[in-house]
Amino acid sequence: MAECIKNMKIRGAQAIGAAAALGLALAAIECKKKEAKEFLDFLKEAASLLKSTRPTAVNLFWAVDRVLGAAIGNSTAEIRRNIIKEVEQIIKEEVECNLRIGKHGSTLIENGMQIQTHCNAGSLATIWYGTALAPIYRSWQEGKRISVIVDETRPRLQGARLTAWELKRVGIPFLIVSDSASGYLMSKGLVDLVIVGADRIASNGDVANKIGTYPLALVAKEHGVPFYVAASSSTIDFSLKSSEDIPIEERSADEVLFVGEKLIPPRGSKALNPAFDVTPAKYIRGIITEFGMFKPRQISKIKRYKA
Amino acid sequence: MAECIKNMKIRGAQAIGAAAALGLALAAIECKKKEAKEFLDFLKEAASLLKSTRPTAVNLFWAVDRVLGAAIGNSTAEIRRNIIKEVEQIIKEEVECNLRIGKHGSTLIENGMQIQTHCNAGSLATIWYGTALAPIYRSWQEGKRISVIVDETRPRLQGARLTAWELKRVGIPFLIVSDSASGYLMSKGLVDLVIVGADRIASNGDVANKIGTYPLALVAKEHGVPFYVAASSSTIDFSLKSSEDIPIEERSADEVLFVGEKLIPPRGSKALNPAFDVTPAKYIRGIITEFGMFKPRQISKIKRYKA
Repeated sequence: MAECIKNMKIRGAQAIGAAAALGLALAAIECKKKEAKEFLDFLKEAASLLKSTRPTAVNLFWAVDRVLGAAIGNSTAEIRRNIIKEVEQIIKEEVECNLRIGKHGSTLIENGMQIQTHCNAGSLATIWYGTALAPIYRSWQEGKRISVIVDETRPRLQGARLTAWELKRVGIPFLIVSDSASGYLMSKGLVDLVIVGADRIASNGDVANKIGTYPLALVAKEHGVPFYVAASSSTIDFSLKSSEDIPIEERSADEVLFVGEKLIPPRGSKALNPAFDVTPAKYIRGIITEFGMFKPRQISKIKRYKA
Repeated sequence: MAECIKNMKIRGAQAIGAAAALGLALAAIECKKKEAKEFLDFLKEAASLLKSTRPTAVNLFWAVDRVLGAAIGNSTAEIRRNIIKEVEQIIKEEVECNLRIGKHGSTLIENGMQIQTHCNAGSLATIWYGTALAPIYRSWQEGKRISVIVDETRPRLQGARLTAWELKRVGIPFLIVSDSASGYLMSKGLVDLVIVGADRIASNGDVANKIGTYPLALVAKEHGVPFYVAASSSTIDFSLKSSEDIPIEERSADEVLFVGEKLIPPRGSKALNPAFDVTPAKYIRGIITEFGMFKPRQISKIKRYKA
């Protein structure tokens, strides 16, 4: 499971949180230790392996810690049962969050709107229904006629590969564009609304998300296009005052240098491949969560609603 | 030649201007008509074929019209000679322009700077020495220690393919990045200066250039990074008051949908593939030309210096 997360066989903030939780459940199932202490040590080792896979999305740490916190009981069998129950609970809750995000977010979407999204924050990035795509799915289910602009999302092309696949499946019309097309599109009035997902939200409302989100927000601001972030509250890192302390993963240069199997620049060329960037709160019109829509600066108030 | 320009075997504003001029010379050489009028009709037909290849870069129209204007003489042989002379003159002048652009632009570049560029506006986009790359080459020749951030430039990857190749050849250090990385790079202070080329500059200083230039300019503005355009005066369209009338080429959706030979999204997916966008004058610190550096709003004054 750790390998799948690291290599992005599973990706998307909520999905890697759920996958890591399931990874711990697998560890609990596989572990043959009879002593509770040894059993827990084994789980902690698995937890730290899972946590070492990717640094930016906070859901990963949140989910692992939550499952570890549930690892209590008088026998390894009881601990194992509690772990599995907790993982099932996380999965159920997160899907419920997404359905609520869809409901709250769909109030932004009117008939005829063309909505731009970046990367993939749909079912394939979550457990089901997505975060950024949830309001779009909900609006479509409500019968609104909408269309979606899908950023292809270099270097891993999650937009062209995954978001396109999801939208095609549901039947929602979409157009794929290069990530750099936002300026053209918005200057021509082709985008009515932007909704993106999030990998980590700081207490002040700064949002780390897939590389390219921040320039998209700047272009949206320039053209008065409302820019929203959709995320379940598990993506909020209440321990961080601002985005300055969000670790930004740098992935292999080869993801940029090779396109398909082919090396594009001359051999020996170097690339820089930051996987995320940070959009400051001031460029975000609102953050759509399972508790409703929040001004970014108010996002830390959600802490009150959490158990 | 028309086919090569259309299919982007030759690309870059200045290069397609020169190539179209050479295309007319080829037409003049190949044409077997003895009558001056028939000869000229043949040339005009060739000119209109060459002009129909790509709509945005104005150098194409400028060069073709300039060569047509030189198609005078008492015999087809004399007309042919005059055409070839004019084409040779254009090529010589444009290279001189680039050398002057390099000289003027290099005054912006200090030791240790990291300069970002988009697409390819080097030797491979011009005749030699480039426009956006000219100040970089000149600075390197002067012994300044600099490095370059190269936007890969989807969908055709001119940055990763061409700019990287040029810089590698000269020995200038560079890093390739996804087009969407500018926000991350500039927020981390990794870019000191941006220089890009241009495909058409309107009288008010608005600049049409490769798709993605405009978002890059917005990010630069946000972070106080100086944003410059480099172009020879043949790229200025004095007939256009503003960018509103610049035709923006839409290229085949397949350039976005296919990466290498591989279709990325599900079959039947659509893409929008505008090849250029417009950066409004207000986001451009200066335009570097063979006549020196101009504030975008002053660019139409260059008309005075032209014969």
